[in-house]
Amino acid sequence: MTGPMSYHQAVDWQALDEWFPTGAAFLAAYRGLSTDALHALQEQRLSVVLDTAAVTPFYQRLWAEAGIDRRDLRTMDDLLHLPVIDKSVILADIEENPPFGSLARRVDRPRGPAVLQTTSGTTGNPQPVLWGAWGRETQNALLGRTYRWLGVGADDVVHSVYGHGLVNGGHYVREAIVRYTDALLLSAGTGIETRSERQVAVMRQFGATVLVGFADYLRKLADVARDSGDAEHLRIRLIIGHLLEGGREPLEQAWGGARAYNWYGVADTGIVASEGPARDGLYVWEDANILQILDESGQPVVDGETGNMVITSLCKTDLAPLVRFNTHDLTRILPETGADGLVFRRIAGLLGRSDNMVKLKGINVYPSAIGGMLIEVPGFTGEYVCRLEREGHSERLTVVVEVRDPGSVAEGSVRDILAGRLGVGVEVEVVRAGATAAVTGLHERQKPQRLVDSR
Amino acid sequence: MTGPMSYHQAVDWQALDEWFPTGAAFLAAYRGLSTDALHALQEQRLSVVLDTAAVTPFYQRLWAEAGIDRRDLRTMDDLLHLPVIDKSVILADIEENPPFGSLARRVDRPRGPAVLQTTSGTTGNPQPVLWGAWGRETQNALLGRTYRWLGVGADDVVHSVYGHGLVNGGHYVREAIVRYTDALLLSAGTGIETRSERQVAVMRQFGATVLVGFADYLRKLADVARDSGDAEHLRIRLIIGHLLEGGREPLEQAWGGARAYNWYGVADTGIVASEGPARDGLYVWEDANILQILDESGQPVVDGETGNMVITSLCKTDLAPLVRFNTHDLTRILPETGADGLVFRRIAGLLGRSDNMVKLKGINVYPSAIGGMLIEVPGFTGEYVCRLEREGHSERLTVVVEVRDPGSVAEGSVRDILAGRLGVGVEVEVVRAGATAAVTGLHERQKPQRLVDSR
Repeated sequence: MTGPMSYHQAVDWQALDEWFPTGAAFLAAYRGLSTDALHALQEQRLSVVLDTAAVTPFYQRLWAEAGIDRRDLRTMDDLLHLPVIDKSVILADIEENPPFGSLARRVDRPRGPAVLQTTSGTTGNPQPVLWGAWGRETQNALLGRTYRWLGVGADDVVHSVYGHGLVNGGHYVREAIVRYTDALLLSAGTGIETRSERQVAVMRQFGATVLVGFADYLRKLADVARDSGDAEHLRIRLIIGHLLEGGREPLEQAWGGARAYNWYGVADTGIVASEGPARDGLYVWEDANILQILDESGQPVVDGETGNMVITSLCKTDLAPLVRFNTHDLTRILPETGADGLVFRRIAGLLGRSDNMVKLKGINVYPSAIGGMLIEVPGFTGEYVCRLEREGHSERLTVVVEVRDPGSVAEGSVRDILAGRLGVGVEVEVVRAGATAAVTGLHERQKPQRLVDSR
Repeated sequence: MTGPMSYHQAVDWQALDEWFPTGAAFLAAYRGLSTDALHALQEQRLSVVLDTAAVTPFYQRLWAEAGIDRRDLRTMDDLLHLPVIDKSVILADIEENPPFGSLARRVDRPRGPAVLQTTSGTTGNPQPVLWGAWGRETQNALLGRTYRWLGVGADDVVHSVYGHGLVNGGHYVREAIVRYTDALLLSAGTGIETRSERQVAVMRQFGATVLVGFADYLRKLADVARDSGDAEHLRIRLIIGHLLEGGREPLEQAWGGARAYNWYGVADTGIVASEGPARDGLYVWEDANILQILDESGQPVVDGETGNMVITSLCKTDLAPLVRFNTHDLTRILPETGADGLVFRRIAGLLGRSDNMVKLKGINVYPSAIGGMLIEVPGFTGEYVCRLEREGHSERLTVVVEVRDPGSVAEGSVRDILAGRLGVGVEVEVVRAGATAAVTGLHERQKPQRLVDSR
């Protein structure tokens, strides 16, 4: 029984603190740093990533097919020669190399301690995502950096509604909060893990001050707290989660004026970008990510134009490196330097998903962005779902909108609001509060479903 | 923003490996060690625990009431002078000092990074349980020790059905497996987090080789796997969880002859004792716990007699120390040294709960132990529940037993089996498979409820 190396022995904790600083060390390192110095740091880290990719079967095959040799990759600009990957490429590899694929393997040494989670897998089998100890702990440090920057501290009780089980969300957020803030974490999970009425009671019992999770369910919890009479006893001062355009104000209002902050990441990449105290866009953690914004043909867009976020992670240097991963999430680069004076570029946040886009009479419509447009509708609960159907040779999109008093809202007025914002006509159905929950999966899913494709 | 110390900075990882070794170092340290050397080590660690207790308001008040001064406590024998605590004492303290009580506080310094979970709280509010970074990581090492000793390694895929959310189980097991084995963990959670059919599909997809969790739900999963046709594609070789007397064989049979191992612990203490490869009783991790077996009056029983397990943890030296915690779980010390040659004493495992005991005509009946007696009943599904009712001036216990073919089992024959084993008559109701699930909470709870008190 000689046995494996422990996880904590596999991490160089001192290097971790130096490479991916949090707290005061984070601001000291990146406030006022020159772009050249940042690029030098990125290039150095990228070199380690590419070395790992070169001993990973997944990239060995991919690069061989593209006629690329590790030795040809010398500068960051050479990244543009490398193939872009995405979920479909990873899933095809897993199909060929079940059950874990060839991305989380190295030809030069055993895997070592690793974390396994899966994506929620709405269609087909769940996709495994693996991290080595270093890759995992760097992700925790980078999310911990956000929580600390936004002021989560020893006096806070943080209530998390991220799901646990096989998905990454709840586990990731738990690790970041426990390791990098002195706050206490209530790991409540989804409404399935801890039902909503119980969540509100627990928040009250333990004096929750911070909420973390996806905006949709957090807004729903505010309704539950109001109905149960707990709302007036709650003192939520901070909400840190995932906001879509127009989603901040309704959430802050629902929680009595708590300040809401936005960050962006996906399971494969971990956190990519985060708002700071000034909330002037999302700062890309560029010490840990190289972000490229590409159009649908894979070419870089002009700064300021909207395109797909393509990420090369500078963290996953021990296992399962991520080189040019297309998230299919859309954003754009914001101009100039942010108020916080960091060297990092800023993005606008998640503007929609390119692979969830609906094209109506030549106009791109993003169902996930429609919630922000509906806040003008009186009594809108925040809940809705879009149904896409075939109609002869074209397609029809129906937006099903929940309002508190359906009798008082004319469907025509909602149609006018949406037509004005979308630039194309859609159908509207006004329904009572709660009527879309079974379709959106609001209570069971981390991210409710906003589009049902019935073509 | 000077901010807190990170969790990983708060743990002396080298000391952790030295104090609570795992793998080969564990066997090297404790195989053939003398009892005197073990006691010296315990006494040294106890001294640190008592120092921490002396700066913890909870014990300051408790000891002052009992007229005890830290300086009077010099040897392990002095432990017997200290008050015994249990859940009711902790809950009363929380009631007086909401929301976290005075146990996880120190008067000499701030709390520092901490982990918060709650007990499941079937009645009333959930009880918070807190760990400091050192206390938490020592628990992870001690459970990791068990998994490694029982052979969990790099080639294993471990499927866990411990719940997440606010309870400790799933998080604790995840940390232990990820940190101390090179196995991959499928953190499926309860049947509520990942429904049973999905669990079985995931086990098959990822080639699970080890199951961890509570026996009841694991046995249920075997039924689901058989019904779905997945069973023949599964290769479970090892089950590590919590077994009651008579529970091992049915579980092993249900999983095609996989070997099942037992360990014992509760949220407050972490792991206390574990079977080794020889399965000759549960070895008490005495480098981390001082175990006393006490009768109902609080006096030590003679070795070999059954009594309450009262634990003094030698791990929680940074926060929330546990001094003489009565688990109200019953066991007895096994004679002599075990086959594995460790210095540690062995216990028989969980023999029932003293606070869940039913007294029928002067005979002690433990509902949680009745499952083991029912395995003689043809077609017994493993599921049952006991209902306690008032009947005039005495009490009646009805055992509701699930069998696959209720028509083929006479209630009288089951009554005879139980009367013979219990030494007292009980009522019996035979019901179809699945009929008790709503009452026991088999799908939602980590430990199904086996007693409904309807007096």
